[in-house]
Amino acid sequence: MTNRSAKFASLPRKALLLGGNGFLGRNLVRALEAEGVSVRIYDRGHHAQARDQDIVGDFATGQRLLEALTGVDVVFHLISTTIPSTSDADPTFDVTSNLVGTLRLLEVMETAGVHRIVFLSSGGTVYGNPRVLPVPETAPLEPICSYGVVKAGIENYLRIGAKLHGVHATALRLANPYGPGETRIGVHGVIATFFARVAAEEEIVIWGDGSVVRDYIHVDDAIGAMLTAATLDGFNLYNVGSGEGHSLTEILDIVQRISGKKAKVSFRPARAFDVQEIYLDIARITGETDWTPRIALEQGCALLWAAMKH
Amino acid sequence: MTNRSAKFASLPRKALLLGGNGFLGRNLVRALEAEGVSVRIYDRGHHAQARDQDIVGDFATGQRLLEALTGVDVVFHLISTTIPSTSDADPTFDVTSNLVGTLRLLEVMETAGVHRIVFLSSGGTVYGNPRVLPVPETAPLEPICSYGVVKAGIENYLRIGAKLHGVHATALRLANPYGPGETRIGVHGVIATFFARVAAEEEIVIWGDGSVVRDYIHVDDAIGAMLTAATLDGFNLYNVGSGEGHSLTEILDIVQRISGKKAKVSFRPARAFDVQEIYLDIARITGETDWTPRIALEQGCALLWAAMKH
Repeated sequence: MTNRSAKFASLPRKALLLGGNGFLGRNLVRALEAEGVSVRIYDRGHHAQARDQDIVGDFATGQRLLEALTGVDVVFHLISTTIPSTSDADPTFDVTSNLVGTLRLLEVMETAGVHRIVFLSSGGTVYGNPRVLPVPETAPLEPICSYGVVKAGIENYLRIGAKLHGVHATALRLANPYGPGETRIGVHGVIATFFARVAAEEEIVIWGDGSVVRDYIHVDDAIGAMLTAATLDGFNLYNVGSGEGHSLTEILDIVQRISGKKAKVSFRPARAFDVQEIYLDIARITGETDWTPRIALEQGCALLWAAMKH
Repeated sequence: MTNRSAKFASLPRKALLLGGNGFLGRNLVRALEAEGVSVRIYDRGHHAQARDQDIVGDFATGQRLLEALTGVDVVFHLISTTIPSTSDADPTFDVTSNLVGTLRLLEVMETAGVHRIVFLSSGGTVYGNPRVLPVPETAPLEPICSYGVVKAGIENYLRIGAKLHGVHATALRLANPYGPGETRIGVHGVIATFFARVAAEEEIVIWGDGSVVRDYIHVDDAIGAMLTAATLDGFNLYNVGSGEGHSLTEILDIVQRISGKKAKVSFRPARAFDVQEIYLDIARITGETDWTPRIALEQGCALLWAAMKH
């Protein structure tokens, strides 16, 4: 017996998570298992809570992928060997590990008889500096870092895989996720980083003047979109965000208000790979599926602060 | 003394042509030399009219690229190791040879101090099946073959190279070029192929029902756009076509009328990688530069027929 909710009645039974040890991956594992889905993690190392079925492998070389895919109904592809801020240092590695790696994944999926994939794309990098806000999926893709070029390329190969080989593929152009479980403070999300810094009374670094605008989505909403995506047929491409933009200055205000602490802020020169202002038009996914973001920013920030040890 | 025309007064002095032995390459060599530009060809083999300065190398491995780039002011990147119809057979090869190959080219250009590139992209494949006709550069890119995915990826890395490294890069999304010098009859352009087949009283094969619509541009107009592109600063991305769409049935009519011969036609099933209907919105390039297509389709076909030996 599973305790599967009515909402996700059509979820596949066995899932493989590529990149299951990261912030999103760990949250997705919990959500899938709560829905009665059997989960196998494929990642470079074992997480503390690793289970017998998990597999350690290097996506960049495709190590043990066939073994990982055997018996699986759906792949959640959350792996990236690069991050936006450093991807331009070695674009060739970005392409060969992530883009060629995903082409290999699609081949091995076909060998293993796996015909369904949910791919985590990047709402913050594929568009570059958008000409229209909120930015819809149909906007031109003008990425200004390699990370965004590679994500867009993978989306395109998923479209072709759906057309030529009947793969069910949904790509989610995710906004900036935040919430409990962000462990790489200072590397990933600014909200958790800002909270951690004020809690520790450490300096907060802001690149630029604080006017950079982003679309922040609570991790529970992001995970909900991934579960929904796993139930869809054919090729689908969706923005997944709150649909709202908030500046770093606004985030800083919220963090100070909720924590009741005054931040020490150091402003540094803006970075070339940072888009100035972006937030996502989410009309396509809210119109075509029953997913919608449910956790407002202030509420999500209050939940995160409450969950943090301080 | 050079016989440089006033129009291209700002053309660079020394050009490297990657893929100089192909249909477009040979025409571009002639046009550049007529403008007083010194031309070096880099290609896999020597053409019959090879000059001492030409270099034989394999772009897929980057062989002799640094030597080829030394002393050069502008690179015309016309090389592709794949063609649309077969690119899906091995997308990994497409990515590693063409996309990674172009990343290597950009690195070697920086080493050699070459800061200007004109890249031949593909108006017929980057958009996939366009939602709007004529299709503008801002339309979503939804390529349905690997060839188009890779071309779009290269465009993106050129944008990043312009932003991060100050490279002057112009990508031309070229429509279907036709004209004298197409030697690979049956592989490349349909117009030359149709003329060659009727001249030889051989069967013409049409994939689909003849309703497939394309944008055909005379090679002299295409070459003119490449010369213009070499004079532009910063990053630029242009559709280059006639701006008009013509069905295969129309082309067949024109070929029969001009040749005065009746074609024998064999209709075969449509191919998955063929876009059904596409022609390009050329308002951006005609608005921002002094280039415009000058040779109408009937006129260009008549010129081609006259130039063919029959």
